[in-house]
Amino acid sequence: MSVTFADIEAAAGRLAGHAVETPLIESPALNDRLGRRVLIKPETLQRVGAFKFRGAFNRLSQLSADERTRGVVAFSSGNHAQGVALAARLLGMPALIVMPSDAPSVKVEATRSYGAEIRLYDRMTESREAIAAAIAAKRGAVIVPAFDDPHIIAGQGTAGLELVRQARARGAEFAAVLTPVGGGGLIAGVSTAVKGLSPETKIFGVEPAGYDDTLRSLRAGERIGVKPAFRTLCDALESPAPGEITFPMVQKNVSDIAAVDDAEVAEAVRYAAATLKLVVEPGGAAGLAALLAGKFANLPDGPAGLVLSGGNIDPDLLARILRREI
Amino acid sequence: MSVTFADIEAAAGRLAGHAVETPLIESPALNDRLGRRVLIKPETLQRVGAFKFRGAFNRLSQLSADERTRGVVAFSSGNHAQGVALAARLLGMPALIVMPSDAPSVKVEATRSYGAEIRLYDRMTESREAIAAAIAAKRGAVIVPAFDDPHIIAGQGTAGLELVRQARARGAEFAAVLTPVGGGGLIAGVSTAVKGLSPETKIFGVEPAGYDDTLRSLRAGERIGVKPAFRTLCDALESPAPGEITFPMVQKNVSDIAAVDDAEVAEAVRYAAATLKLVVEPGGAAGLAALLAGKFANLPDGPAGLVLSGGNIDPDLLARILRREI
Repeated sequence: MSVTFADIEAAAGRLAGHAVETPLIESPALNDRLGRRVLIKPETLQRVGAFKFRGAFNRLSQLSADERTRGVVAFSSGNHAQGVALAARLLGMPALIVMPSDAPSVKVEATRSYGAEIRLYDRMTESREAIAAAIAAKRGAVIVPAFDDPHIIAGQGTAGLELVRQARARGAEFAAVLTPVGGGGLIAGVSTAVKGLSPETKIFGVEPAGYDDTLRSLRAGERIGVKPAFRTLCDALESPAPGEITFPMVQKNVSDIAAVDDAEVAEAVRYAAATLKLVVEPGGAAGLAALLAGKFANLPDGPAGLVLSGGNIDPDLLARILRREI
Repeated sequence: MSVTFADIEAAAGRLAGHAVETPLIESPALNDRLGRRVLIKPETLQRVGAFKFRGAFNRLSQLSADERTRGVVAFSSGNHAQGVALAARLLGMPALIVMPSDAPSVKVEATRSYGAEIRLYDRMTESREAIAAAIAAKRGAVIVPAFDDPHIIAGQGTAGLELVRQARARGAEFAAVLTPVGGGGLIAGVSTAVKGLSPETKIFGVEPAGYDDTLRSLRAGERIGVKPAFRTLCDALESPAPGEITFPMVQKNVSDIAAVDDAEVAEAVRYAAATLKLVVEPGGAAGLAALLAGKFANLPDGPAGLVLSGGNIDPDLLARILRREI
């Protein structure tokens, strides 16, 4: 099972009028700093503050009338939770989201504000998969995976379609496109869209240090999981392993993956606020962090596309990062 | 002396390829909150982080070769300073900026980073006008006013041209357009541009409480100065009186002015960060503050255009606002 360019075009049709077509932003200051043209796709400006709305809406909009009545269940630390919750509300179906009790409170509150029922669980002692499966079975509800689902991947890919088309409208062809990587839904979809329109463009992914399961898997040639003993600032990217559907797409499309540590990510969040004037959450700034830290020695010359994937950061954490307490 | 629509069109030609055409942003969350469609013009994403680059570049690009050699002098608490400094650097001329010693350090540092010479002065004991005049006389340099200059006003007006045209590209005609008001350069230029394209659109301005010189002047029918005993969070809007050129334009074009206090502005800065995912400085958020606080009882129904005029906020101040310490 894979996702085709046509699947992404179809998803774009479903999202039209529902998702925000986020703008393409260019910062002369960032271009100067990096010595190249960078065109930024701020999915921070997407509904729910992250690209996740795209995949969730694409998935939920294809449920049958019967399925809509019984509703959906998802588990997520935050952005997918919000995407599913808002898509469910817009489409008029119930949603229950299983969220870790230590998820950023801004994400839990936002998910609740979209009308979803929340079930908190303890990350250390409970299995979110088991909780979600039990609830879904009882309700006859559909479980909506965060990334390893063709409709989710196709939805995320619509950001890639827009990125290439918006860049062309300004006369730019991408030498490279960078995105953050968690479970791989974003990069699988975006890379398929970008390669479909511009086969020569190289795709680069960025993971948090310690959560570099996709990097390790690419090197090993098979899906490898990680069990980090520590957290990362990038709560949105804490997936333990690439997906069964996403990983072959990553293998096919992605040139390289880099890992960024918390200090590099915090610097990128500060840079985004101070220079780009954008609020970006740590996971959403992973690609920017890699560019600022010069992580990719093999980045081809020419314009780069950069996805800032989310902006849902607790105000207090942003304040601490701004004050260099992190 | 006034500024015509044709002057603004000419300024747009000079700025093409130099200023950023800032995007038009729409937030479904803000639309829901306000019960109307709001299209946001984030001049936070402009070069130097504020609309001021537009006017400065328009002014400086029209200097003669001889004038360019002798350079420019300006006085400003920050955003005009940066606009003049960067425009001077891009056009290859020296710039000296007279800045108050208590200006936001982020603005002083940025101005210096663009290569300008800085002369700090004491707001309480010195006259910036006298200092600037003395330096300009000695150097034979041109003084670049912050707002009361037809080329500055025409440059700022280009944001209004873009705003209306970008909105039309999305099928929206503005019932109202809102901008912050300091000396009136932005609202004079933007209102002329907007009225030129869309005569029925009403224009609304927003000043900081205590610095409502334009509101008082409009009511009095003549230019009235204010001498507030206190500061405002909106350092960018602390002008003591409307300009000689800007005021008649405001009288002609502006339907109403509201004043917002520091608490309302801080709430708008928080809303911009948390929901819009945009970093906006207090003065830049004045229009948003007025909308969120429902300041205009006479705002016509229909789409509203909102200029977020600048994003140059000290990281520590932003942190304090995010933590609700202000």
